[in-house]
Amino acid sequence: MTNRKAAVLVAGSWGTALAAVLADNDYHVTMWTRNPVQAKEINEEHRNGKFLPDAVLPPGIVASTNMEQALFGAELVLFASPSTAMREVARQAAPFIKEGTLCVHATKGFESVSFNRMTTVLAEELQIDPKQLVVLSGPSHAEEVIGKQPTTVVVASACQESAERAQDAFITPYFRVYTNPDVVGVEVAGALKNIIALCAGLTEGLGFGDNAKAALITRGLAEISRLGTAMGANPLTFAGLAGIGDLIVTCTSRHSRNYRAGSMLASGLALDDVLQRMGMVVEGVRTTNAARELAASFDVVMPITEQLYQVLYGNKPPRSAVEDLMGRGRTHEMEEGAASWGLHQ
Amino acid sequence: MTNRKAAVLVAGSWGTALAAVLADNDYHVTMWTRNPVQAKEINEEHRNGKFLPDAVLPPGIVASTNMEQALFGAELVLFASPSTAMREVARQAAPFIKEGTLCVHATKGFESVSFNRMTTVLAEELQIDPKQLVVLSGPSHAEEVIGKQPTTVVVASACQESAERAQDAFITPYFRVYTNPDVVGVEVAGALKNIIALCAGLTEGLGFGDNAKAALITRGLAEISRLGTAMGANPLTFAGLAGIGDLIVTCTSRHSRNYRAGSMLASGLALDDVLQRMGMVVEGVRTTNAARELAASFDVVMPITEQLYQVLYGNKPPRSAVEDLMGRGRTHEMEEGAASWGLHQ
Repeated sequence: MTNRKAAVLVAGSWGTALAAVLADNDYHVTMWTRNPVQAKEINEEHRNGKFLPDAVLPPGIVASTNMEQALFGAELVLFASPSTAMREVARQAAPFIKEGTLCVHATKGFESVSFNRMTTVLAEELQIDPKQLVVLSGPSHAEEVIGKQPTTVVVASACQESAERAQDAFITPYFRVYTNPDVVGVEVAGALKNIIALCAGLTEGLGFGDNAKAALITRGLAEISRLGTAMGANPLTFAGLAGIGDLIVTCTSRHSRNYRAGSMLASGLALDDVLQRMGMVVEGVRTTNAARELAASFDVVMPITEQLYQVLYGNKPPRSAVEDLMGRGRTHEMEEGAASWGLHQ
Repeated sequence: MTNRKAAVLVAGSWGTALAAVLADNDYHVTMWTRNPVQAKEINEEHRNGKFLPDAVLPPGIVASTNMEQALFGAELVLFASPSTAMREVARQAAPFIKEGTLCVHATKGFESVSFNRMTTVLAEELQIDPKQLVVLSGPSHAEEVIGKQPTTVVVASACQESAERAQDAFITPYFRVYTNPDVVGVEVAGALKNIIALCAGLTEGLGFGDNAKAALITRGLAEISRLGTAMGANPLTFAGLAGIGDLIVTCTSRHSRNYRAGSMLASGLALDDVLQRMGMVVEGVRTTNAARELAASFDVVMPITEQLYQVLYGNKPPRSAVEDLMGRGRTHEMEEGAASWGLHQ
């Protein structure tokens, strides 16, 4: 056992699973939570029953409701709060984060209203060099990670050394970590994939088959990749773990809330009823609105997002939305397509 | 009804489904088959019972065992034979194909021994300008296409006009066709995806979860894309319908032979026993060998293909193969990764 210390804010399912990975790598991990009952359960029973009911946590993990205590001596801080809470959590953490601390986040989504990416929020609140910031993303159900099922993720940072420090911190025989310099691409892919997951649920609910779902995932990838590229991402990031990898997991698993919500919408339930029945946040609903506004401001065509928006907010019947997608004008698969022929002919 | 004529060689499930699409677009379609019983069934009962038992074929489709008759007056010829039979079928068709005829193929795989792509085989045997050649590929179970379930495919040609002629011929309200100039990419993706499908079956058979499968599909896409790019393909084609789209359909469907074969291998059956139980061609087995030789000659690293080869031909236990993949040295997600950091720092 080494003396390396890490802090994880907050104690949801993904934060807890990643805390276990760090503990497996000989980190002493303190999880911060506002909830004293949850902290007590983690400290005394080595369990986080609300989020990962079947898991026993490694002994290297403790919990605290005191932010200063949680962050004391940490050389790595993992932010894993919901996107809606990131700014507030970062603000509380800021006074206790030392220079040189590696700050990793594993949160998917944009900030409300501003549509800021999470590293932007962290850089603003923590007042640190963006080179200390890393985003971790990829196809990773928390339940499988804590069960030590083989999993791969990507860590992206503007600074290669920071990405490699994060790679070293998290890599284990069951958790393979790749580095990538494209912070924008990894964050945008993680946020936008929930739109496509909602649509995948819709096609399933409408009774369409595997061809339609594969088409939706592929063309969905193309359009979120177009928006990401306009925002400064490398298009190849969308073909990687944070892009297509995460999309596959999210669009083919009944565990995905967005997928389930889409399936309910297809059955004719109104959006408010779906949200009420889900009883928790359906990230893709909020993100559809964000993506539509971003697409307009970056002048990017996103036909799937537009049709989903009409279904969610314009009472458009889902079946008409699919028909309109299939009936669009004839197009090239990639915009570069025509250009490439131009070059060769 | 127009007077446009098309020929489809041969009458397998995919050829038959695409013949129905052409018939829906007002083509008179003649399917060529060596089997007089099958021809009679198509002509008299409008059924192709062996390949698509549940489907009734449109009235615009007839069948013939006579190649000259089948090709007479055809302005479009669709080649949909197995890759192993393509050269022989093309050789028989060659004398009856006129200048200006659009030759489309929808066959996935390399030629045995030579590892030629299918358009290479067609160009050699038909002695026509490669600009008349088009490849059609994408995520498309034949059973769903003949049931008019929404489906998307890509048509690629060295000639934009040929690609657009094929697009016009096949596009219908349920069958959306995109054009792409990258013939090499579309053909290589279609051939190599079966390797990854075999591996996906392996991971499922070993009891691994969704994270592992998504990782395998994503990292598999990365390595077949590396080989394709070395062979002259555009890497973005692998992020499209013929690449990731087809991979998703093949790796998540129990209908896929390659997927089922992988699952049996994981249970400890030897390759010969698996092939015997399948009772039909498992394309991925042959392709693994082809890809490994191509990787060596193009100097491309393909760790998943190499591990699968060891399992198939070297008696390596599947679980050790997965462990060796997870335990490789630390790497960047994309080879350009390090270069990109180099540029920015």
